Amino acid sequence: MTDLSVPPFSSRHIGPSASEQQRMLEAVGFESVADLVAVAVPEAIRAKDRLKLPAAAGEAEAIAELRALAGRNRVLTSMIGLGYHDTVTPAVIRRSLLENPGWYTAYTPYQPEISQGRLEALLNFQTVVSDLTGLPVAGASLLDEATAAAEAMTLARRAGKSKSSVFVVDADTLPQTKAVLATRAEPLGITLVEDSLGGGLPECFGVLVQYPGASGRLRDFRAVAAAAHEAGALVVAAADLLALTLVAAPGELGADIAIGSSQRFGVPFGFGGPHAAYMSVREGLQRQLPGRLVGVSVDADGDPAYRLALQTREQHIRREKATSNICTAQVLLAVIAGMYAVYHGPEGLRGIAHRVHRHAVALAGGLREAGLEVVHREFFDTVLVRVPGRAASVVAAAVEQGVNLWQVDNDHVSISCDEKTGAAEVTKVWAAFGVDGTGDGTDVGLDADALPAALLRESAYLTHPVFHSHHSETAMLRYLRKLQDKDIALDRSMIPLGSCTMKLNATTEMEPISWPEFAAIHPYAPADQAEGYLELIGTLEGWLAEVTGYDAVSIQPNAGSQGEFAGLLAIRAYHRANGESGRDVCLIPSSAHGTNAASAVMAGMRVVVVACDSDGNVDLADLDAKIDKHRDALAAIMVTYPSTHGVYEETIIEVCAKVHDAGGQVYVDGANLNALVGLAKPGEFGADVSHLNLHKTFCIPHGGGGPGVGPVAVRGHLAAYLPGHPLHNGTPVGPVSAAPYGSAGILPISWAYIRMMGSDGLTAATEQAILSANYLARRLAPHFPVLYTGRGGLVAHECIVDLRQITKETGVTVDDVAKRLIDYGFHAPTMSFPVAGTLMIEPTESEDLGELDRFVDAMVAIRGEISKVASGDYDRTDNPLRNAPHTAESVTADEWRHPYSRSEAAYPLPSLRDGKYWVPVRRIDQAYGDRNLVCSCPPLEAYED
Amino acid sequence: MTDLSVPPFSSRHIGPSASEQQRMLEAVGFESVADLVAVAVPEAIRAKDRLKLPAAAGEAEAIAELRALAGRNRVLTSMIGLGYHDTVTPAVIRRSLLENPGWYTAYTPYQPEISQGRLEALLNFQTVVSDLTGLPVAGASLLDEATAAAEAMTLARRAGKSKSSVFVVDADTLPQTKAVLATRAEPLGITLVEDSLGGGLPECFGVLVQYPGASGRLRDFRAVAAAAHEAGALVVAAADLLALTLVAAPGELGADIAIGSSQRFGVPFGFGGPHAAYMSVREGLQRQLPGRLVGVSVDADGDPAYRLALQTREQHIRREKATSNICTAQVLLAVIAGMYAVYHGPEGLRGIAHRVHRHAVALAGGLREAGLEVVHREFFDTVLVRVPGRAASVVAAAVEQGVNLWQVDNDHVSISCDEKTGAAEVTKVWAAFGVDGTGDGTDVGLDADALPAALLRESAYLTHPVFHSHHSETAMLRYLRKLQDKDIALDRSMIPLGSCTMKLNATTEMEPISWPEFAAIHPYAPADQAEGYLELIGTLEGWLAEVTGYDAVSIQPNAGSQGEFAGLLAIRAYHRANGESGRDVCLIPSSAHGTNAASAVMAGMRVVVVACDSDGNVDLADLDAKIDKHRDALAAIMVTYPSTHGVYEETIIEVCAKVHDAGGQVYVDGANLNALVGLAKPGEFGADVSHLNLHKTFCIPHGGGGPGVGPVAVRGHLAAYLPGHPLHNGTPVGPVSAAPYGSAGILPISWAYIRMMGSDGLTAATEQAILSANYLARRLAPHFPVLYTGRGGLVAHECIVDLRQITKETGVTVDDVAKRLIDYGFHAPTMSFPVAGTLMIEPTESEDLGELDRFVDAMVAIRGEISKVASGDYDRTDNPLRNAPHTAESVTADEWRHPYSRSEAAYPLPSLRDGKYWVPVRRIDQAYGDRNLVCSCPPLEAYED
Repeated sequence: MTDLSVPPFSSRHIGPSASEQQRMLEAVGFESVADLVAVAVPEAIRAKDRLKLPAAAGEAEAIAELRALAGRNRVLTSMIGLGYHDTVTPAVIRRSLLENPGWYTAYTPYQPEISQGRLEALLNFQTVVSDLTGLPVAGASLLDEATAAAEAMTLARRAGKSKSSVFVVDADTLPQTKAVLATRAEPLGITLVEDSLGGGLPECFGVLVQYPGASGRLRDFRAVAAAAHEAGALVVAAADLLALTLVAAPGELGADIAIGSSQRFGVPFGFGGPHAAYMSVREGLQRQLPGRLVGVSVDADGDPAYRLALQTREQHIRREKATSNICTAQVLLAVIAGMYAVYHGPEGLRGIAHRVHRHAVALAGGLREAGLEVVHREFFDTVLVRVPGRAASVVAAAVEQGVNLWQVDNDHVSISCDEKTGAAEVTKVWAAFGVDGTGDGTDVGLDADALPAALLRESAYLTHPVFHSHHSETAMLRYLRKLQDKDIALDRSMIPLGSCTMKLNATTEMEPISWPEFAAIHPYAPADQAEGYLELIGTLEGWLAEVTGYDAVSIQPNAGSQGEFAGLLAIRAYHRANGESGRDVCLIPSSAHGTNAASAVMAGMRVVVVACDSDGNVDLADLDAKIDKHRDALAAIMVTYPSTHGVYEETIIEVCAKVHDAGGQVYVDGANLNALVGLAKPGEFGADVSHLNLHKTFCIPHGGGGPGVGPVAVRGHLAAYLPGHPLHNGTPVGPVSAAPYGSAGILPISWAYIRMMGSDGLTAATEQAILSANYLARRLAPHFPVLYTGRGGLVAHECIVDLRQITKETGVTVDDVAKRLIDYGFHAPTMSFPVAGTLMIEPTESEDLGELDRFVDAMVAIRGEISKVASGDYDRTDNPLRNAPHTAESVTADEWRHPYSRSEAAYPLPSLRDGKYWVPVRRIDQAYGDRNLVCSCPPLEAYED
Repeated sequence: MTDLSVPPFSSRHIGPSASEQQRMLEAVGFESVADLVAVAVPEAIRAKDRLKLPAAAGEAEAIAELRALAGRNRVLTSMIGLGYHDTVTPAVIRRSLLENPGWYTAYTPYQPEISQGRLEALLNFQTVVSDLTGLPVAGASLLDEATAAAEAMTLARRAGKSKSSVFVVDADTLPQTKAVLATRAEPLGITLVEDSLGGGLPECFGVLVQYPGASGRLRDFRAVAAAAHEAGALVVAAADLLALTLVAAPGELGADIAIGSSQRFGVPFGFGGPHAAYMSVREGLQRQLPGRLVGVSVDADGDPAYRLALQTREQHIRREKATSNICTAQVLLAVIAGMYAVYHGPEGLRGIAHRVHRHAVALAGGLREAGLEVVHREFFDTVLVRVPGRAASVVAAAVEQGVNLWQVDNDHVSISCDEKTGAAEVTKVWAAFGVDGTGDGTDVGLDADALPAALLRESAYLTHPVFHSHHSETAMLRYLRKLQDKDIALDRSMIPLGSCTMKLNATTEMEPISWPEFAAIHPYAPADQAEGYLELIGTLEGWLAEVTGYDAVSIQPNAGSQGEFAGLLAIRAYHRANGESGRDVCLIPSSAHGTNAASAVMAGMRVVVVACDSDGNVDLADLDAKIDKHRDALAAIMVTYPSTHGVYEETIIEVCAKVHDAGGQVYVDGANLNALVGLAKPGEFGADVSHLNLHKTFCIPHGGGGPGVGPVAVRGHLAAYLPGHPLHNGTPVGPVSAAPYGSAGILPISWAYIRMMGSDGLTAATEQAILSANYLARRLAPHFPVLYTGRGGLVAHECIVDLRQITKETGVTVDDVAKRLIDYGFHAPTMSFPVAGTLMIEPTESEDLGELDRFVDAMVAIRGEISKVASGDYDRTDNPLRNAPHTAESVTADEWRHPYSRSEAAYPLPSLRDGKYWVPVRRIDQAYGDRNLVCSCPPLEAYED
């Protein structure tokens, strides 16, 4: 018999019901979605066929298939180390943070007033990093340790005094860090020199020391730092945070910059990621820090409030002058790491480090007693053993015991102890070496330790009360709830951020990522322990290729920016392989996201800007002129499609052809892919390469500002130039991320989404996204001018409302409207991008009609308030818009000094009386915070005023 | 080597750190906890030895052991039926409700103002039940279908006109329902008569019809109902909610009462529970409804608000006049079932029912075509097949296919289709019968259906907007968040409820219950598929026996009230076995919880009240007098220890001896066991039987008012009289719950708690609970008189503060203080129990010192407010206490008409400015709601005023 039809998952993912969709079509003036799409999407780019994907699976079926894949991963005890260490995620943190939509569906905290919870959590993370590394300013996380090292390298180059182009790398650095440094150094003309750091330093602008080393060796790098400073070079320490609870801080040894991973602070392996890397710097370098930095400022009432500091550094507005293309951080993982420290406190962390160390000492002691050679006398957690000719057999014997060790070469095995290591594991490792251990229970080697006396940590850390107040599970649970309640995430309301595609992150997609069979696999576990992962990754890459019309995909890039960089590297390598290494000009339309230009610079290209016409489209005349001017040097054009203005440009095929004719490659930024899936394929309509954002179109949650996944997709001629990895497949282009498969741990999310939507569901989602954007545009147009439309006056999947005239006439700014939306319970749309003075709104397919209408109601009500400013009914400076957002405290103040009423401030719409979101702070003074930079937990007294 | 010591789980479970504990001891005036306990706990009852439990496991170790146990359960497809049907819990409901501490750590909604979220959710459940059963008033859930049937039986007896003592039971009733009815009928003198309901009815006060029948048969019971009504009897229909989406409602067929299970609305099997049973009644019977009922009322501002209706019916204040001992409901499960209906809506539910039915039809059709005899022509989901002599082999063959069927007898097999049944399952069942099926994919039998035309449902249901507004996952997620945010649960603040022991429900304890290997086991699955469960249950029963000093434990009772009933039944059976069936007097001190008396009545005993002295202790002289008076009839005494006054009565051993000397048995109510664990054992200091509350002392969360687990523990001479089960072990006493192991699905919680605490941890928890209560008593005593203390002026694990003098002097009532605490962010302590005009406060061991002090600060501040009333600084009727709680709306009102300020109303303490909880409604008018009873979702217009 055949199965009876069941409502598909897509009916849960897509917000509007069929009848709601019909009402929306009526409002937009079409009979059917097909009619709408036929007008909105240029015929020339339309895909001819349905996507060739398996028929959509139900939720239970998809989970069953994922369980089968998970079952093909084998969870052994991994004592491989190399920057990845097993750790215990406290259950309360897993359930109430990692698995909690209130945390994981939040957006990047660009709207700080509705982000105080995660900003405080990030400030905790920064404090952990700053305290442990002994450097005063720490950022809010970077993508992984290897890219953090690369960022430190370029920071050292631009901040240091040396004119040298040499960067010295400790020979005892993690292999993936060396490889990513090489990928990043070459296009920038930096020469990497590997050095054992035993004697004098070559001339250089910076030196990176791994502390402790990849081999486990722990050594004092004070002399290296002194020599470097003498030569005008900066010192980067790649340090293990857990080790730093016992040994001297990098800052105390002379490091200018510290980087590393916070993975072992409670974040599972995930087959390599996502994890939060960190960077901290000494005084004087803070304005050079790449990525995001949380700082303390004050709000309109003078109360302390958190927000992203020094945002003017951010490359997304620096374009071709950028020095880094970092956008996404690893917020969710940084928050976990910070909470791990909050939960354990300094004593708890020291206790964990102590146990890790003593187990390593015991392990080494047992081996030494049995006559084996332990290479280093001083180490923290990693023991390097010399077993001439026997390394492979020892590692194999360990696998028999259920333990993965690391075979360094034919003669050496290394073993890293971690939080989960106990006597049983040590005994198994001994057995793998043929050592009987001490069956009688004697504590071999536990009397001594292996930390050099000169390196013992004496300075205090984590003295702030937050690290001493939440050590019971009850207290931790409430702290997480309290912070969560301060924020707006997708579990409370629509987040209509243009270009960010804040759609549903379905529970069925999310559940598998915390299964041990996905969470507990070391990235360097033997392939036969990761068969499920490898199949899932291969399948997902294939599906993404089908969706985009490309021939090959790499999911390695762990952020969109890294995907861009990888795509441009592929273009660069392709030209070079063709003997055209002179092709180094990258055309970028003026409307592009700043990251495009930054990535091009990082890939060694010169950015040439192409003008846009008054409709926001690429100015073809200017394009011709620029191509003419740079014809022989033309490497590529980078365009976003649909454009950053939210319009399907009619000329895209022409643009592609012009660039191809001149020998260039076409890069289509996949940021807006949500407007194309199932309808058009960049790989078919003329592009050579794209990156995708799985955290936009393919449902990986934004996590409050990361993790992201930015796969790069290419046509066949570029496939050979996708990123490689030193410990896996070698390709002409090195890795762009630390782990071979980037943020593999969250790929089940996108796999599940595609699996459950199928061709029809994905296409229906795109169609609904277009309909919803046009519905909003149509509903808002009588109140706010909608900027840029394409054929039929239609937009793509987002629309821009223009406030410039309003601002001119009334003084009410985009900022005022954005902050006033908070009073209405909404996260603001994207502000002033791509056009200053506008709001870009993207509803996505997941919002139902009720929520869309609630948003329209809010915008219309706000327009009414603006009209009152215009008419003089509201004061021009003391009105609900300018004073927004309004905290409960401000609206309940005993004295009310405003010319508008309290209820106008708090409840401008009656619907707000049921479950109103109360913003925890008033409007935040950005400039104050930048002038008075505080980037770690402020003392309690700061709150007392 | 030996393991290095790791901080134990108890350091996470117990709130105060060692240094906090020291500060608390100082405040109470002791040097050590041992010193405190030596004074507080009478030496005579102290246990001599440490508890004999395995050494405490770490969280990871406990999880690993539970995974091993889970691995010994085998998850097959269970098509057994008999009241339990497989179902899909929507993932968003699982994660954001079942696995969300914001929902599961909430308490029973006795404080309605801070419970509006779960009250709305329960109202949804009631609406589902009322609409589907066609009866106007539905309660907020009962414990299981079988006990619901028993409650319906007693309701029919007291509400009906018939003088008969006969209750007629449909022969086609579920076997566990028949058995529980028998257990409950006998002590009450009710005669059960089983009848096939084919002809005339015997004289009776009520009749129960199973609709559809246990055998699957679906029949029209209109004639039965008419006959019953003619004879003055009431009609109870035990109906399947899913079937009711397709067939006529019981109310439409003449039922006066409908009962049943809502399990198949998204609640997993859990090896038998917990699930929410339902009851609905026709107009006129609502005031007879047992258990809780949510109704709509208005708050102080006249806005609609939910609260428990008709609470004066509740037996906890009716004592020996009670007709039911029901306290706990199954709130969490009822909420899930209600949300399942909200998520699917009427169309979705009908679609599910339709698929279930069509699969059953196809299944039957295929069997008939193959020449097999399908017994009933008309059915919903269950197909009864006659296979003379072959039943066992068919069932065995099905197991080979991975499917559990039900062997009715040697000649019959029944198969129940459910939401998960698809073509694959139907084909497997066919194969088990040796039927090839239709390999060619023909839809055998799907053309027809098997619903009698006369029974097709014509009436509408679930027309309220709430069942039409949350069908996308995003909308559902937000609805759950919105409701959750209205409530105070343990994830926001301490819930200092005396006698309710609101301690930590640790995540590690909670996680296993949603693993499929625990969640997806049918209660009647073959024992070899439940080996892990059976071992876990056996181990847990053993541990509980060790903790309490008894010899045998049964975890079958799924609420404390059921445990009490089971314990009293054991005493009754024991006396009868000894030829002393005349022993039927149960002595109960006047301070006892009303449930005690109600349970005694249900067990066929006469309640005799023993007076208490002015200290709240049992009055020994009156005890002697009552024993003398009833010496030959004395069955038992029921005492709570420590007493409901929160004091270790010195005379407990004497009391026990006196009762034993008179031939009676001693029942110690285990409600306050949290003050004894590790320090004293009721089974050793003189008691014969106790029930425990795993949802108090052993960490099962309260779930907003259930589930609960109330094991009964007995000394050896009573072991033979523990509850049995018809489908498992037979004992002289029948089952008290529907499922053999009650709420087995949540037993991993208590198992994990004991496993991770060990003897030392459990004892330390008790000691801390005593210290924390005494700390609060000491801190509060200068401000409020503390009622009842024992030796050294100490209390046990809770303390009573007396407001009677304050009320007399100022008019400020217990209610005012309780509601004012909401403005301070707290759930009120227990109000007016055991003494009217007092508050009973139990902090438990899980609250850290910061939270205890925050509570003290609130109480002291409130005392200050009371003083202002006393001094005249505050108006006697218009003051922050009388007007509490204050909503944001009320405090931001444009006009403020109160003589105190807004900030005094909203922020009486500065600490409230960070993350204040805003109550969604003002004080609720209880009487209004009872006068104007509305117990299902009110129309939207109700909110418009």
